[in-house]
Amino acid sequence: MAERPSRGLADVVAASTALSDIDGRAGRLFYRGYDINELAGVATFEETAYLLQRGSPPTRSELAGYRGEIAAGRALGKLVTTALPEIARSQEPMEALRSLVSLASAEDPDKDSNEPGPNTRKAARLTAQQPVLVAAYHAARCGQESRPADPEAGLAASFLLQITGAPPPDRETQILDTCLVLHADHTMNASTFAARVCAATLSDMHSAVVAALGTLKGPLHGGANEQVMRGLEAIRNSGGSDPVGAAASHALARLRQGEKIMGFGHRVYRAEDPRAAHLREMSAELAAASGDDIYYRMSRKMEEIVFAEKGLYPNVDFYAATVYHYLRIPTDLFTSVFSVSRMAGWTSHVMEQHADNRLIRPDSEYIGEHGLTWLPLDAR
Amino acid sequence: MAERPSRGLADVVAASTALSDIDGRAGRLFYRGYDINELAGVATFEETAYLLQRGSPPTRSELAGYRGEIAAGRALGKLVTTALPEIARSQEPMEALRSLVSLASAEDPDKDSNEPGPNTRKAARLTAQQPVLVAAYHAARCGQESRPADPEAGLAASFLLQITGAPPPDRETQILDTCLVLHADHTMNASTFAARVCAATLSDMHSAVVAALGTLKGPLHGGANEQVMRGLEAIRNSGGSDPVGAAASHALARLRQGEKIMGFGHRVYRAEDPRAAHLREMSAELAAASGDDIYYRMSRKMEEIVFAEKGLYPNVDFYAATVYHYLRIPTDLFTSVFSVSRMAGWTSHVMEQHADNRLIRPDSEYIGEHGLTWLPLDAR
Repeated sequence: MAERPSRGLADVVAASTALSDIDGRAGRLFYRGYDINELAGVATFEETAYLLQRGSPPTRSELAGYRGEIAAGRALGKLVTTALPEIARSQEPMEALRSLVSLASAEDPDKDSNEPGPNTRKAARLTAQQPVLVAAYHAARCGQESRPADPEAGLAASFLLQITGAPPPDRETQILDTCLVLHADHTMNASTFAARVCAATLSDMHSAVVAALGTLKGPLHGGANEQVMRGLEAIRNSGGSDPVGAAASHALARLRQGEKIMGFGHRVYRAEDPRAAHLREMSAELAAASGDDIYYRMSRKMEEIVFAEKGLYPNVDFYAATVYHYLRIPTDLFTSVFSVSRMAGWTSHVMEQHADNRLIRPDSEYIGEHGLTWLPLDAR
Repeated sequence: MAERPSRGLADVVAASTALSDIDGRAGRLFYRGYDINELAGVATFEETAYLLQRGSPPTRSELAGYRGEIAAGRALGKLVTTALPEIARSQEPMEALRSLVSLASAEDPDKDSNEPGPNTRKAARLTAQQPVLVAAYHAARCGQESRPADPEAGLAASFLLQITGAPPPDRETQILDTCLVLHADHTMNASTFAARVCAATLSDMHSAVVAALGTLKGPLHGGANEQVMRGLEAIRNSGGSDPVGAAASHALARLRQGEKIMGFGHRVYRAEDPRAAHLREMSAELAAASGDDIYYRMSRKMEEIVFAEKGLYPNVDFYAATVYHYLRIPTDLFTSVFSVSRMAGWTSHVMEQHADNRLIRPDSEYIGEHGLTWLPLDAR
């Protein structure tokens, strides 16, 4: 037994990984040794997913092969398509994705193996299917047929096409692509850790990803980007003539009541989250182009106040919210978009866990009663 | 950052709990301060689940109320019943349960709250539904209608009735009931830990239980009881006239090749797992009553050899295998039976996590490359 519990495993090393690394003091994030600042706006999501899942940046022919796997992997199986209409009627987006990915294992030809080859193929298929599942779910709940994915388009372009119903402007595709790159992996975040705990029993990749989806759903994790947008919408919709001022008052009031504000602070970063800097810039650009920059200006004002009052920086969720809003993605799908990207990281962590496995089985500290005697029912 | 990683979080305290406690040196297990040896054969599974979920043993009227909740909670929702036939055709038992419980959240009236009241009600419903889901899945894949649960019967009796198609003898019901008591909780085992990691993002109880089901599925965790039985079956079916001798040779050969034998050893126990002692005794009793004690005698012989060679004790999975076999439960449902019981523990841990939450977000040790430069596609 260890001496004392570390609440929430803060600062406890739970696994070794060659996938990503955070320098929390310097505010830097690396994927397999590449600084995220070198990738953002330069590498595509497919290149990033390939890097994470297969170990090094793809050559031109490797990338073409991977894009082919992604295009082929988009097809949804019969179990998924049969259940989809009823799921879309009765489950929220992340609840539905948890169900749909669980159903999707049924028809995966590699479902019964955790070996590197089958796992690599499953990782590509899961990455390919996730945006299609989000779009198909959204279409089904709107009572529409999902637009077919564009086999020639990249993952970001095809997803925007399917979600918004129109071929996206190139710059919007580039921006979503960069968002997906920025969200692809992040060391031992809660959903990734859940996936590794699951995989470490030698359970399969689908089970691990389903565990991760349920974990990402929580508002202390992936659910935060949606909460940020709902907060901005509530302030703006409360109807004052000065939403930027209202955002400032709201933030100040919450902080002075000792409450948290969604989208600020992070367990690991002590400096600015490098992802937030890119997202802020893209939010500004989209806001200017949209002709309605209120949400962006509200966000900037809140950022200023939270930093002045608490010294906290925005995290990845804060500006992702307005970026997705300006890309016309429905607010209740924001966490689902996060999952489209993080699928690259989850699947890579499952492969890394399976390649050098030990059961993840911690201890606990017992804080209950001792030495009780079980009495017969009528003596209680 | 901590100094060095603890592989698999062995001996790292990940959480505080008042639910269960293990004295690994003495080979003792306690639920909320009650020694498992006092509960086995005495307390019913419903009393045990109540103890874990609600904090103390039920009085007669509390137990009647809880049994009423369990009886009412058995009803499966429309999303589950609609998807069931296709799931039964295309998913293995634990894969199917992961999907079915994910679908079941849709119609839970308390799905949107993690507060104690709603969580307590969801815990009872999930406990009630799990055996019904297993039985309904089994019936569907056999092309039959599931026998209706007996509203007057306890959970164990009703489950055996539904699975075997006939009202079970009282003694068999008692034995399954004791098995369920013995498997109900076990501190920070991998599936429970996965459930807590999920719940700690403030995700919901269904998401956490779905994560746990996918984790239990693995052969290093709940999947082991099925593997034990398959091993025994393979040895017996290899056709020799002396299956007990063949079991001995098999065990010796594996051990001498440095391989593990399923069902032996445990991360936490250094003495005999107290659950194994009860299960061994029940296996012996059922074997004698069945008129075919070969599997029991094979198990005893393997136990003797593994202890002599390695000093390892059987764990909970080893004798659970033959007990379930003698109860005429299909081998591929053994892990599902484990889940019927562990649902009591999972749901209790989710409530405990939600009641005093901190995000579970460990660190990792980076073991990959550093300082790489991202080259243009054609320069790679």
